[in-house]
Amino acid sequence: MPSLYARQSLPPCRWNAMLTTHPFDDDKLREECGVFGIHGADSASAVVALGLHALQHRGQEAAGITAFDGKEFHTHRAMGHVAGNFDRDEIIRQLDGASAVGHVRYSTTGETALRNVQPLFADLSTGGFAIAHNGNISNAAALRKLLVRRGSIFQSTSDTEVIIHLVATSSYRSLLDRFIDALKQVEGAYSLICLTAEGMIGCRDPLGIRPLVIGKLGDAHILASETVALDVVGAEFLRSVEPGELIIIRDGQLTSHRPFAEQSARPCIFEYVYFSRPDSIVDGTSVYSVRKAIGAELARENPVDADLVIPVPDSGTPAAIGYAQESGIPFELGIIRSHYVGRTFIQPGDKVRHLGVKLKHNANRALIAGQRIVLIDDSIVRGTTSLKIVQMMRDAGAAEVHMRIASPPTSHSCFYGVDTPERAKLLAAQMTIGQMANFINADSLAFLTIDGLYRALGEADRKQDAPQYCDACFTGDYPTTLTDFDEHGLEDQFSLLAERVV
Amino acid sequence: MPSLYARQSLPPCRWNAMLTTHPFDDDKLREECGVFGIHGADSASAVVALGLHALQHRGQEAAGITAFDGKEFHTHRAMGHVAGNFDRDEIIRQLDGASAVGHVRYSTTGETALRNVQPLFADLSTGGFAIAHNGNISNAAALRKLLVRRGSIFQSTSDTEVIIHLVATSSYRSLLDRFIDALKQVEGAYSLICLTAEGMIGCRDPLGIRPLVIGKLGDAHILASETVALDVVGAEFLRSVEPGELIIIRDGQLTSHRPFAEQSARPCIFEYVYFSRPDSIVDGTSVYSVRKAIGAELARENPVDADLVIPVPDSGTPAAIGYAQESGIPFELGIIRSHYVGRTFIQPGDKVRHLGVKLKHNANRALIAGQRIVLIDDSIVRGTTSLKIVQMMRDAGAAEVHMRIASPPTSHSCFYGVDTPERAKLLAAQMTIGQMANFINADSLAFLTIDGLYRALGEADRKQDAPQYCDACFTGDYPTTLTDFDEHGLEDQFSLLAERVV
Amino acid sequence: MPSLYARQSLPPCRWNAMLTTHPFDDDKLREECGVFGIHGADSASAVVALGLHALQHRGQEAAGITAFDGKEFHTHRAMGHVAGNFDRDEIIRQLDGASAVGHVRYSTTGETALRNVQPLFADLSTGGFAIAHNGNISNAAALRKLLVRRGSIFQSTSDTEVIIHLVATSSYRSLLDRFIDALKQVEGAYSLICLTAEGMIGCRDPLGIRPLVIGKLGDAHILASETVALDVVGAEFLRSVEPGELIIIRDGQLTSHRPFAEQSARPCIFEYVYFSRPDSIVDGTSVYSVRKAIGAELARENPVDADLVIPVPDSGTPAAIGYAQESGIPFELGIIRSHYVGRTFIQPGDKVRHLGVKLKHNANRALIAGQRIVLIDDSIVRGTTSLKIVQMMRDAGAAEVHMRIASPPTSHSCFYGVDTPERAKLLAAQMTIGQMANFINADSLAFLTIDGLYRALGEADRKQDAPQYCDACFTGDYPTTLTDFDEHGLEDQFSLLAERVV
Amino acid sequence: MPSLYARQSLPPCRWNAMLTTHPFDDDKLREECGVFGIHGADSASAVVALGLHALQHRGQEAAGITAFDGKEFHTHRAMGHVAGNFDRDEIIRQLDGASAVGHVRYSTTGETALRNVQPLFADLSTGGFAIAHNGNISNAAALRKLLVRRGSIFQSTSDTEVIIHLVATSSYRSLLDRFIDALKQVEGAYSLICLTAEGMIGCRDPLGIRPLVIGKLGDAHILASETVALDVVGAEFLRSVEPGELIIIRDGQLTSHRPFAEQSARPCIFEYVYFSRPDSIVDGTSVYSVRKAIGAELARENPVDADLVIPVPDSGTPAAIGYAQESGIPFELGIIRSHYVGRTFIQPGDKVRHLGVKLKHNANRALIAGQRIVLIDDSIVRGTTSLKIVQMMRDAGAAEVHMRIASPPTSHSCFYGVDTPERAKLLAAQMTIGQMANFINADSLAFLTIDGLYRALGEADRKQDAPQYCDACFTGDYPTTLTDFDEHGLEDQFSLLAERVV
Repeated sequence: MPSLYARQSLPPCRWNAMLTTHPFDDDKLREECGVFGIHGADSASAVVALGLHALQHRGQEAAGITAFDGKEFHTHRAMGHVAGNFDRDEIIRQLDGASAVGHVRYSTTGETALRNVQPLFADLSTGGFAIAHNGNISNAAALRKLLVRRGSIFQSTSDTEVIIHLVATSSYRSLLDRFIDALKQVEGAYSLICLTAEGMIGCRDPLGIRPLVIGKLGDAHILASETVALDVVGAEFLRSVEPGELIIIRDGQLTSHRPFAEQSARPCIFEYVYFSRPDSIVDGTSVYSVRKAIGAELARENPVDADLVIPVPDSGTPAAIGYAQESGIPFELGIIRSHYVGRTFIQPGDKVRHLGVKLKHNANRALIAGQRIVLIDDSIVRGTTSLKIVQMMRDAGAAEVHMRIASPPTSHSCFYGVDTPERAKLLAAQMTIGQMANFINADSLAFLTIDGLYRALGEADRKQDAPQYCDACFTGDYPTTLTDFDEHGLEDQFSLLAERVV
Repeated sequence: MPSLYARQSLPPCRWNAMLTTHPFDDDKLREECGVFGIHGADSASAVVALGLHALQHRGQEAAGITAFDGKEFHTHRAMGHVAGNFDRDEIIRQLDGASAVGHVRYSTTGETALRNVQPLFADLSTGGFAIAHNGNISNAAALRKLLVRRGSIFQSTSDTEVIIHLVATSSYRSLLDRFIDALKQVEGAYSLICLTAEGMIGCRDPLGIRPLVIGKLGDAHILASETVALDVVGAEFLRSVEPGELIIIRDGQLTSHRPFAEQSARPCIFEYVYFSRPDSIVDGTSVYSVRKAIGAELARENPVDADLVIPVPDSGTPAAIGYAQESGIPFELGIIRSHYVGRTFIQPGDKVRHLGVKLKHNANRALIAGQRIVLIDDSIVRGTTSLKIVQMMRDAGAAEVHMRIASPPTSHSCFYGVDTPERAKLLAAQMTIGQMANFINADSLAFLTIDGLYRALGEADRKQDAPQYCDACFTGDYPTTLTDFDEHGLEDQFSLLAERVV
Repeated sequence: MPSLYARQSLPPCRWNAMLTTHPFDDDKLREECGVFGIHGADSASAVVALGLHALQHRGQEAAGITAFDGKEFHTHRAMGHVAGNFDRDEIIRQLDGASAVGHVRYSTTGETALRNVQPLFADLSTGGFAIAHNGNISNAAALRKLLVRRGSIFQSTSDTEVIIHLVATSSYRSLLDRFIDALKQVEGAYSLICLTAEGMIGCRDPLGIRPLVIGKLGDAHILASETVALDVVGAEFLRSVEPGELIIIRDGQLTSHRPFAEQSARPCIFEYVYFSRPDSIVDGTSVYSVRKAIGAELARENPVDADLVIPVPDSGTPAAIGYAQESGIPFELGIIRSHYVGRTFIQPGDKVRHLGVKLKHNANRALIAGQRIVLIDDSIVRGTTSLKIVQMMRDAGAAEVHMRIASPPTSHSCFYGVDTPERAKLLAAQMTIGQMANFINADSLAFLTIDGLYRALGEADRKQDAPQYCDACFTGDYPTTLTDFDEHGLEDQFSLLAERVV
Repeated sequence: MPSLYARQSLPPCRWNAMLTTHPFDDDKLREECGVFGIHGADSASAVVALGLHALQHRGQEAAGITAFDGKEFHTHRAMGHVAGNFDRDEIIRQLDGASAVGHVRYSTTGETALRNVQPLFADLSTGGFAIAHNGNISNAAALRKLLVRRGSIFQSTSDTEVIIHLVATSSYRSLLDRFIDALKQVEGAYSLICLTAEGMIGCRDPLGIRPLVIGKLGDAHILASETVALDVVGAEFLRSVEPGELIIIRDGQLTSHRPFAEQSARPCIFEYVYFSRPDSIVDGTSVYSVRKAIGAELARENPVDADLVIPVPDSGTPAAIGYAQESGIPFELGIIRSHYVGRTFIQPGDKVRHLGVKLKHNANRALIAGQRIVLIDDSIVRGTTSLKIVQMMRDAGAAEVHMRIASPPTSHSCFYGVDTPERAKLLAAQMTIGQMANFINADSLAFLTIDGLYRALGEADRKQDAPQYCDACFTGDYPTTLTDFDEHGLEDQFSLLAERVV
């Protein structure tokens, strides 16, 4: 649910001045959202806050919770992390009620963006309606244009809001009919959790691009992006919501519906590579075990004669353990990550920039000096970080630096809820592997093959005409049409008239 | 433009714990809004900020400004006063542009209310549209119900928002046709300033209940609630907008339109009694001179044998000067108002409440002791303050305390944009004048007659079948139908589903 | 107790950019402090907060309260007004105890200054010791130099801190002996309230330059700068502390001591002219009555043929009433002061400066046009405001503008706790009265004579060789030596090494 | 430099209500400070901010920097992390100058503590003097008592302030003589960095209990607690300051002095076990290599038949790698630590406490189920976390859980700058190892022996009569007298009179 419209309003220079210490490297793709809802629990919003904290890796810029107390809906939205905002007693007390839905998001900064922070809420003729969305509607700009012409007034620049207006103006009578009517008009990726006075609705798009799971905590039902959000509150993991499935939770009962035409699923393969937490179970499979299998596959496809296997922390660690176990080369911590990287450290002034400051990572010099090392990272996006890390290893005295990447080259943008740089900035879209090795100054560089990746997931290989996963970022094979992005320019036209709240 | 819907969400106990030091007494009616717009000026929003500061007496709880920079609209809204919010450089810089419109309001507190703070803005199919409203739409709840049924999604609980949705969904084509179409569906009081990419629109309802004036500053045009807002920026006062007149300012030209059927005007008489600043010219007449004439009229109607004429500061001062000059009794400052009453002083703890704390006013003991005094105040609402002030005079040793009120008894609620207590709490709705004198413990009490008030305004008397002013608060003679308030209950039904942002 | 040392750190340009709307004109002398202490009361700090609120006119930049709960001292200091800081429940709850002392001050801005905000506190060998000071020690820099040489470490740049170090390092044994030993070494003006575990001490310097009064609230004793601070909490006014008197309040008993050699008193005459509130009784005399007497004296000394007497609000009002009553010319409100001048309105951007913005005062045009007016103000300092107000009257159409000042020309700086511009900036130090009339563009200008001022105070005249008051600002006749200011330069030397807390 | 005096003022219940997500477990000893100074660099304070960020693990509650610009000292102190406070441009700009010293500290919370946040500064007769201290003065209360008796006024409750007053009141003339005179009167642990107008001074106590290293960045000299703070700014590591050595940096020259009588060094052994970062070099030895050697030693001393070696992240990881390599049992990530544990998450309300929330760590269920595991942690303090982690492993289906601790039992408190619980709360002070195994519900539990620890450090064994390290927390063998703690009660007496700033 990124904002198509606001993208150009990001102050670009700000980011240049920032030495981010984010644990997810600057040079990573970023998942844009996580969702969590619970129905039928005491202190529902406190549970949601804990669940969102466990999903914080899916979005760090803002968070929101809407609760229903049996009579009224209460919403709080805040820029920043869950901790520091939704762990305040006075906030949770005001978010009273036995059902609540929450959202974390990565996206635009500034007070402005509060209007875009989810859950979005509307007071419809059918009653109050809150919605939290993980994914991205790829025809949102076209639908918005149409809706505004008919008299709809948008409160935000979020793609998710088109769903609400489609529900509000649907000619169907019941909320559920209106909701399905709306979803049939949108294209793209969506794992949704909606809250009304009567119950909670969950829905995953027909391709199942983004994950969504069902849990149980006593008599209460939970919907969440990942199983780790169930673990944090001690809830039982029941199963994943299936692609195209619509779940209704009402009066303590869960019912399953299939409003869409049958289609082969295409869940996002990058959830296994990087997005999901290693301790999550995604669509039935342990993420940690997949990553170790990737590491082993990588060691078989791309062996190297070396002294130490060193992960780029923390995302490269499981693959590095797999690589070390398969290759017999010892696994060592050659790069120490600061414990305080969860906070953004903005560079104070320009004067120290030349120091080549290493706020996030530091080489374990005493270990590395004179050794031949294999560095394991999960992916390369722009290549800027890889370049720095290879140099850091050389500065610490490494004899040889071999880089091994636990996924195929990332060569295409994502339009399904992931913040990808435009294609021209993806290193793999511009260079051969040899050029990339040269660019990052490694003695050797190798990527996992796409078939190797499918093998690590337990498949014999990738079915070329009916791929089992959405792997568009590696292959350019997009599973849906991309209306807004094909008719480029729509978005600009609207954003010019949009109000900026300062 | 009060919020009908949110009224019940006020935490009532909070107000009990507050020793407000507001310069406008707790026991006053409160004007709910002031508006100011300028078109065609450098640094338009800085001028608006100054204009709003001069209109601060019309609304102290929140303020907002929307500016148009030729391409985009920028809005900032804040709880609290203009000073401290709209005098900050970084805010004004972001509100760039040559046209801007602003609003001050009295109403609900808390972050929640930010959605209700004006100007409201919508991105319509005809382009961006900002609106600032002084007055109150008395069929807003009924219209809202209808609009929601048709699929409109409301962002606020403000009555003003119905105007925007009526514009958005109008079947007319041009913005101006849509705007007039919308106004023809609303009833009540409205002085409006709207801003679009093409120009600024001003409009006063057919009865002209709330004021609106036109000014000129160099080549720029200004619309404002009162002339004092022109004075503060050194602008020239051109004339009042006439009741039912619609003004368009575009390309440096001002044009006048008459979209409504002709009607006799009924401007609010209380603007002269209390709301407007004494240095304003309202519909051609000096407010200060009216108040002095009221004081003289009061002295003639209700003379008293006394030593000193003492105003209840500051609103009673001009009438007290008029009374003193007419009666020959010396005018003295027997009550000293703290210079720091512009700030709310919340009583720290309950332990000092019994002290009968006098934060706002203090008796000038040395002057009063042993004297017979005439106290002049502009009106009595609940009577609570009068009771305290009479007692303060007695505690200071006054021999006799005679209270004279510079208006008739306030016996009815206002539905046109003034915050009135419900009728049952108006002292004059429950008691005779004799009972009231007894209640406030005065040696005598007298009010100006309604005809005396009209005389002070230069009329021979009140025309009973076609009154020259809206005087409903004194007479109960409402000049419009009151749809929402006649079909009572509408509003509650909706507010239950409305989201509370915490 | 101004800070000698920090003065040069004021960002001067900031003030230029500020259109202050302070009710005390920019062009006024400013009292620098007010003090209030209570001993033996429930919720002592809540009472202090109310008392300080009533003394807010004596210092608006910062406030502080120290309370003693029988075991520990608790202090809170804040920049800004009493309201908004010391009316917060959580603050008052933490300032628990039956005795408390507070302070308001005018002085340097910024977080830095918190160290200078009083009460100052020290943990001495004799126990905890808090001190609040109104006045100024005129040999503070010399004493500080000496103390630092002996090993004392200063926490602030306040002159008051020298008293604490003199107490701490005194060779006497008991706290009281040490305190008197300390006071005998300082010169200048001081009205002090000190709090220890055993009791409260009040002291007024031998000349009684600054005021200090004693009150009673039930069994509790109060010390305060003015009687209005007693009124606000309903306390009884007992008497003024006498010049050179030291008061001890312990176990519900008040005792009086005379530690200093007998001297003729010289209380500040400007307290009557401007500093004190009109409803205060200073050294036995009603301030309001003195101001009216000044107005009458002024009318006799400087009559004028005119249509209206107009006060410069609010400080000129009592004198204007006196002038009007004596002369028979009607008193009218020709200048309307905004109700919202208690807040600082910082000019947004530079672009509107040319508008000649009138945030504080507005001419009552309809009244003034074509009239000959007498303007009454209390004093002229730099003349900048007088210039603007005369011009405002002319712009509003006044036929003639005659300025009458309710005090003699202010020609000398104050070194006793009043913020005066350096002498070179005082208009009366540079010009004759004729030149001044010309400078402010008035048709005539006249000041009260020094003897007229003494007459208004009930004296036959000023005793030239033993003046009854400190009138140094009018006469240059300083009643003490001025060590620091005679050996100019001392202060700079120290401030260079002082730490700036940012 | 903990505050002896303020300890009892911690609101104890607050901590119970907090589900801390701190990366350093609640059940760890906490290093209380880190220091960093640079002399002779452009933008010195920006470099200090970066250095402090790298030392953040030594103190997270507050930070401060003092800079000297050639004329004045500028200080900023803040509660909270370095990031978010000292990465703000406006702060760094105000901390101008070519030399600066900074401090991070763990300690009391609340605004109160700002007075205790270092660097402390005093304006002495010899000029400005700033001091930053890592360690603890164990006769601070006794010295303070003496100093107060002589007239010194303390600004804080910090033990460090006694050093400043000893300097201020020393009878020696030069600052350096005074400083050495002061240090000769204090006992305990101190690594100090001082800044004056003339230069920077570093000093390590004669036993060298806390670390301090020297670095070089271009022409500038750096003093810092650990080498990682040199790495972060790309500075060269020269050498450690030796125990009892005093370093002076002036005019680009570094000189070394030996003011104390010769003594055998006793550096803190726990710096290797837990406090220092693994990538630091402490007194010449790589911390990571010591921790791996400890793991190997532990595997030899306490082998176990198991399927997986699992570290308690992150502090147990290097020892776990050593254990796995020595034992041949595979190293796996069985516990996943949240990336967002750098922030405190306060439990919202009490209602979710029963959920047994796991905010920091989550079991990697798919890996652990049915396996026999060896858990490696660095130490056990109270045992509360070990209990939870063993239970988490059992809940995830572990067949057997064997706990191995990479240090001897922690049985005594530290008085040298580490926040230790009182002895009665240390698990090892109350139970045998068997009882502890039972308490934490492990199938087996073993600790490294004290000789094993010395072997991992390259010693043959611990020299009983002249131990090579301070290992008092394991042995109770304290290397200094403990004046304040032997004469218990001193501290309380003073704290009663100390002011609390609220």
